Amino acid sequence: MTDTLDLTRLGGPVSPRASALRPLSPAEVRITGGFWREKQELNASAILDHCLTWMERIGWIGNFDRAAAGTVAEHHEGIEFVDSEVYKLLEAMAWEIGRAGDTGLDAVYRGLVERVAAAQEPDGYLHTSFGRAGQRPRFSDLEWGHELYCFGHLFQAAVARIRTGYDDTIVEVAQRLADHVYREFGPEGRDELCGHPEIETALVELGRALREPRYVELARLFVERRGRRRLKTTLFQGSEYFLDDQPVRSADVLRGHAVRAMYLAAGATDVAAEFGDDELLDALRRQWENTVARRTYLTGGIGSHHQNEEFGSDLELPADRAYAETCAAIGSVMFSWRLLLQTGEAKYADLIERTLLNAVLVSPREDGRAFYYANTLHQRFAGSVPDEDEISERAESSMRAPWFEVSCCPTNVARTLASVGSYIATATPDGVQLHQFADAEISTVVASGALRLRVESGGYPFAGSLSVEVESEGEAEVAIRIPGWARGARILFDGTEVAVADGYARVRNRFAPGSRIDVELPLEARLTHPDPRIDALRGTVAVELGPLVLCVESTDLPAGVDVGRVRIDTDAPLQTTDDGASVRLQIAPQRESSWPYGDHPVAEAGTEITARLIPYHRWANRGPSTMRVFLPVAEGGAG
Amino acid sequence: MTDTLDLTRLGGPVSPRASALRPLSPAEVRITGGFWREKQELNASAILDHCLTWMERIGWIGNFDRAAAGTVAEHHEGIEFVDSEVYKLLEAMAWEIGRAGDTGLDAVYRGLVERVAAAQEPDGYLHTSFGRAGQRPRFSDLEWGHELYCFGHLFQAAVARIRTGYDDTIVEVAQRLADHVYREFGPEGRDELCGHPEIETALVELGRALREPRYVELARLFVERRGRRRLKTTLFQGSEYFLDDQPVRSADVLRGHAVRAMYLAAGATDVAAEFGDDELLDALRRQWENTVARRTYLTGGIGSHHQNEEFGSDLELPADRAYAETCAAIGSVMFSWRLLLQTGEAKYADLIERTLLNAVLVSPREDGRAFYYANTLHQRFAGSVPDEDEISERAESSMRAPWFEVSCCPTNVARTLASVGSYIATATPDGVQLHQFADAEISTVVASGALRLRVESGGYPFAGSLSVEVESEGEAEVAIRIPGWARGARILFDGTEVAVADGYARVRNRFAPGSRIDVELPLEARLTHPDPRIDALRGTVAVELGPLVLCVESTDLPAGVDVGRVRIDTDAPLQTTDDGASVRLQIAPQRESSWPYGDHPVAEAGTEITARLIPYHRWANRGPSTMRVFLPVAEGGAG
Repeated sequence: MTDTLDLTRLGGPVSPRASALRPLSPAEVRITGGFWREKQELNASAILDHCLTWMERIGWIGNFDRAAAGTVAEHHEGIEFVDSEVYKLLEAMAWEIGRAGDTGLDAVYRGLVERVAAAQEPDGYLHTSFGRAGQRPRFSDLEWGHELYCFGHLFQAAVARIRTGYDDTIVEVAQRLADHVYREFGPEGRDELCGHPEIETALVELGRALREPRYVELARLFVERRGRRRLKTTLFQGSEYFLDDQPVRSADVLRGHAVRAMYLAAGATDVAAEFGDDELLDALRRQWENTVARRTYLTGGIGSHHQNEEFGSDLELPADRAYAETCAAIGSVMFSWRLLLQTGEAKYADLIERTLLNAVLVSPREDGRAFYYANTLHQRFAGSVPDEDEISERAESSMRAPWFEVSCCPTNVARTLASVGSYIATATPDGVQLHQFADAEISTVVASGALRLRVESGGYPFAGSLSVEVESEGEAEVAIRIPGWARGARILFDGTEVAVADGYARVRNRFAPGSRIDVELPLEARLTHPDPRIDALRGTVAVELGPLVLCVESTDLPAGVDVGRVRIDTDAPLQTTDDGASVRLQIAPQRESSWPYGDHPVAEAGTEITARLIPYHRWANRGPSTMRVFLPVAEGGAG
Repeated sequence: MTDTLDLTRLGGPVSPRASALRPLSPAEVRITGGFWREKQELNASAILDHCLTWMERIGWIGNFDRAAAGTVAEHHEGIEFVDSEVYKLLEAMAWEIGRAGDTGLDAVYRGLVERVAAAQEPDGYLHTSFGRAGQRPRFSDLEWGHELYCFGHLFQAAVARIRTGYDDTIVEVAQRLADHVYREFGPEGRDELCGHPEIETALVELGRALREPRYVELARLFVERRGRRRLKTTLFQGSEYFLDDQPVRSADVLRGHAVRAMYLAAGATDVAAEFGDDELLDALRRQWENTVARRTYLTGGIGSHHQNEEFGSDLELPADRAYAETCAAIGSVMFSWRLLLQTGEAKYADLIERTLLNAVLVSPREDGRAFYYANTLHQRFAGSVPDEDEISERAESSMRAPWFEVSCCPTNVARTLASVGSYIATATPDGVQLHQFADAEISTVVASGALRLRVESGGYPFAGSLSVEVESEGEAEVAIRIPGWARGARILFDGTEVAVADGYARVRNRFAPGSRIDVELPLEARLTHPDPRIDALRGTVAVELGPLVLCVESTDLPAGVDVGRVRIDTDAPLQTTDDGASVRLQIAPQRESSWPYGDHPVAEAGTEITARLIPYHRWANRGPSTMRVFLPVAEGGAG
C-alpha cells in the first residue's frame, strides 16, 4: 500500500515497506501545544544540553577526539559502550532540529558529527573501545562488548537525519560502517551476533532509508541467529538473559534482560514486516500479548528483577522491587509502535500511551536535569538528594540522578521526546488515525487528496474534552482512538453520536473545512484492582485518572507519616482534582515488633485523612519522599 | 568464669575466653537418637561422600595436587575460592570423626589433609589460585579473590580437629598459614582486609585453640578495618555489599551481602568477647535485634534480594523472591550461637532452632545428594529435575541440584550437621542449659561435681513430650529452654509445675540419679500472621507446627492445581497431623486475562478441599512441584 511513497523520506523512526498503517513524517504531523509540547520544549531547552554538557565534561565525546588523534587506547573514558550515548544524543538532536527547525542547534549537531566521523577508520569500523593496540581486538567480546549495539545507535541517528530531510556526514559514516558490518557479519562473514540486540531494528531502518536491501538482509540474519545458545553464558547470565535460549519465532513470551528483549522484538517485527514473514509476526504478537497479560506493571514498565535487569516470571510484579528500567519502557513503545503499524489494532496504541505517560515520563525530573534509571512503584524510604555534579554509580536510587556510569536512560528519553510526534497519528489511503492526543496539526495526503486536521487536546491528559477539526475538503475517514479505560466516552460529529468499534471512533465523511469531531472522555479518578494472581499486590488497589497512574507521595501526607502507614478507604468516594485525585486514607499507627510474625492479625484502625494523589510521573520532584502506587485497602474495604 | 578450663580442648566450633554460658565439647554432649541423629547419619553416610566424590571428580581437590606438582597455574579447576570447599569438607569430616569415632573416615581424612599440606609453600602461604607464575599475584585482589576467606575455612577445619582431640598435620598447616597472614596483615603488615569476611571468626578460634594471642589480635584488626570504605566498589557492588560502609561498632542493622554480614557479625562477636569490648557487643546485639525484627523470613532465612545476595530494606520480605541462602542461614546460626554464649538469652536459641529446622534443613535433599543454594518460600512454577551428573550454573533452581559452580552450601551443610551437637546445651558452674531438643547424653562437670543428663526428645519436632533425666547426684540447676511459640507448655519436676522465666524452665535441686523433668510442649498447628508492614505478605497467613514452618506443596493438591490457586479458609479448624497439618483450602478458578489490572475485584469463590501441609524443609522431595509457605486468606477470613 505504501510502495508508491518515498520511504527514504517518510515516517518517523520507523517506516515499514508494507504495513496496515503508514507512519507520518515530522513534516506531516506537528505538535503545536499542550502537554507533549511542554515535554518537547523541556527536552529542547534542558535535556539535550544536559546530556551534551555531561558527555563533554566526562570525556565520553572526547573519546572520539582521542580516537582520531590515536591516543584513545591510553585514555578512554567510561565503559565500553558509551559511544552509543553520543549516538542517541545525535539522534535526539536530529529529531529536534527536524521538529523545531534550526535554532542554533544544527551547528552544534554538525560539530559533534564531525568529531564522531573523524574517529572512523578507513575500513568503516568505528568504535572507541576496541581494535587498537592496547585495546581488545574488534569483535572479540560479542557477548559483552556492545560493538554492534553501538553501531545500531549510530544507524538510528543517521535515519533520524535522513527522515528530517538531510543527507550529510552522519549518513555517510553510517553507510560506511554498515558496509563494514555487512562484510564482517553478512552471508559471507562470521556466523555470530551481538549480546545486546539493537542493530537489528537499526539495520532494517537504515536499509529502508538508504534503499539498501543488504542491510535489511543482515538484520534478518541477526534475528535468525538468535536462540541457538551460542552466546557464552556466565555464572549469573544464562542464555535467557541474552534472549539466546530459543529462536524468536518459537518463543511465547518476552523474558531475560528486558531492554534486550524489547529491542530484539522491535527489530524482529521490522524483519517480519520487510519479508512478509507472518509466522514471525504472529510469534511477536503472541509474545506481546503474553508479556502484557503477565509481565507488565500498571505503569507499562517492565522488568521485575533487579538481578540481571530481567523480567520476572509470570505475574511476579512486586511494586517495591519494580526495576522497570526507563530504556525497557522505551523499547516497549518501539515494539508496540511497530505492531500497531502492522496490525492497526488499538491495544498497541493504548499501551504506548500508558507507557509513555507513566513508565517513560517518570524518568526525567521536572527540570530535565536528573533521571530515574529504574522506576520503582513503591519507594519505602526517603533517600537523599544526589550531588548534581556526581555520576551515580548505581541505577537504583531513591531520587533522580544527574548522570550514571551506565547512562543509557537520559539520552534515550531525549530521543524519545524529540520524536514523540511520530506516535501521534498514522495514515492509510482512506484517511488518518489519531492514536495519541496532543494539540497537533496533521497534514498529509490520502487517496482523495490532501487531508489536514487540527487536534485540540484541551488539557489532556488532565481533562477529557478533545476536538478534531478537519481543515481540508474531501472524502476521508478520521479514526480516533478511544482508550480502553474511557468507557462511556461520547464522540459527536455533526450532532450525531459516533460509535466506537475495536478501539477507534471512525468518522467517514466528505469533509468540508471546519468539520469538527468532538470527543468527551470520562476523565475521572477510578480504582484499579490488581489481578489476585499477583501475590505482591494482594489487598491493594491503585487509583488511575484517565491514562495516568496516580500515586501517594509522603510529601502530601501529614509530617512524619510515610506511605507504609497508608490504607485507602475504598468505600469513600474518589474526588477527581485538576491534576490527580483526592482520597480518604487511614493512617495506621506507628508500630514496632521484635519479630514480624504473630499469632493474631494486627488491628490497624487509625486516623482518617483526606489526601492528594498525584500523577506517578511527577513524584520525587519536591525533595526526598516515600511513594506508593498500590495502596493497601483499609479493613472492611473491597480489595 | 571459664578461665580454669582448657579452652584448647573444650567447646565445639567456638569457645570464648569469657562468656555467660560455656559451650560443651563433643565429648560432653552426644546425640543418641531421634531427629537430629538421623540428620547426622545422613551426613555421615551420604553428604560427606557426595561432597568428596564431586570435588575429586571435578578436580577441586586435584588443584592441591597440581599446586604441589607445580602445574596448577596451567590447570586450575573451578573459581578462585574452591579451596574453601575442601576445607569445609575437612572441617565436617573432623567433627564427624569426633562424633562417631573412626569408622574408616579418619584415613580418608588424613589422606586429604596430606594433599592439602603438600600444596603449602615454604613461607606458609597456601592457595591454589594465586601467586604462581601465570596466576595473579598474592593478595592482588582482596575484594574478590577470597584468599583470606579460604584461609579462614582452613583455620576452622584445624580448630575442629583440635576440639575433637587431635593435634596433627592440619593444625601445623593452619599455624604456618596463620603466621604468614600475621606477618602480611598484622600490625607491621599491610592495613588491608578481605572482601569476604570469614577469617575473623576463624582467627579468634584458632588463637584460642592454639593459645596464640597474635591471631586474636589480627582478627580484631580485621574487624576494626571494616567500614572505612577502602574496599574498591564496582558498578553493582557498593561499600554496603562488603559491609565496608560503616564500622561494625556503629551499625544498627545487618545489610549488604547476607553471608558476608553474618560471618562478620560472628567474628566481631568473638572479638568483642575476647577483648571484653562491651560497646562492640552491644552494637552486635542491636544489629541482631533489628535484623530479626525487620529482615528475617519466617524460616529464619535471610537475604531478600537475589541481586548481590543482599538483605533487602526493612520489612522487604517477598516470599517468592526470598534468596535466603543456605550459607546465610548457617552464618545466622553462628552469630546467634555466639550471642547466646555471651548473654544466656533464650531468644538466640529460639532463632537457632527456627533457622536450623527450616532455613538450613531445607537445603539437603532427603538422600543428601542434592542441595538448595537459595531457599525460596514460594515456588511459582514446577521446574525440571536437574541432571545428577551436571554442575548447576545458577544458585536458583526450582529443585535441588547436586553441585554448583559456586558450591558453598553443600559443604557448609555438612560441617553444620556434623557439629550440630554443639548447639544442644551449655554449662555454667551452676548447671546445664538445654537449648535444643534431641535424644542426647550430656556429661559435664559443674561446681558441685559431675553432672550427667539423659534427654529424651520423644519424636520432637513432631511431638512435644520430652524428658530430662538426671543420672548423677548433686546440687545443680537444669535449665530447659521453652520455645517462644510454646505458650501453655507444662514442665513437671517431682510432681510440681516449674515456672518459665526468660524463656527457660529452671530446676535447681540436689538431684539423685533417676530424677526426671517432664516437658509437655503444645505441639499443635497454629496460624501465623505476618506483620501488616510486610507488603509482600498482605492478606496471607502461614501455618506453623511447633518450631516447624509448614507449607503447601502442589504434590498434595488435586492434579493440575498449583499453589497459585490456593486460598486458606481461616475459619475452619486446623488439624495437627503426625508430620504437619491438614487445612481447609479453597481452590480459586483457573483464570486468564489480557491485562492483570481491572475495574473490579475478581471474585474467587472456588471448590473447597482438605489438604495436607508438610514441613517446609521437606518440600521438593517428590518430584517437580510448586510450593508456598504463606497462604492467601479466602474472602471473609481474618488475614
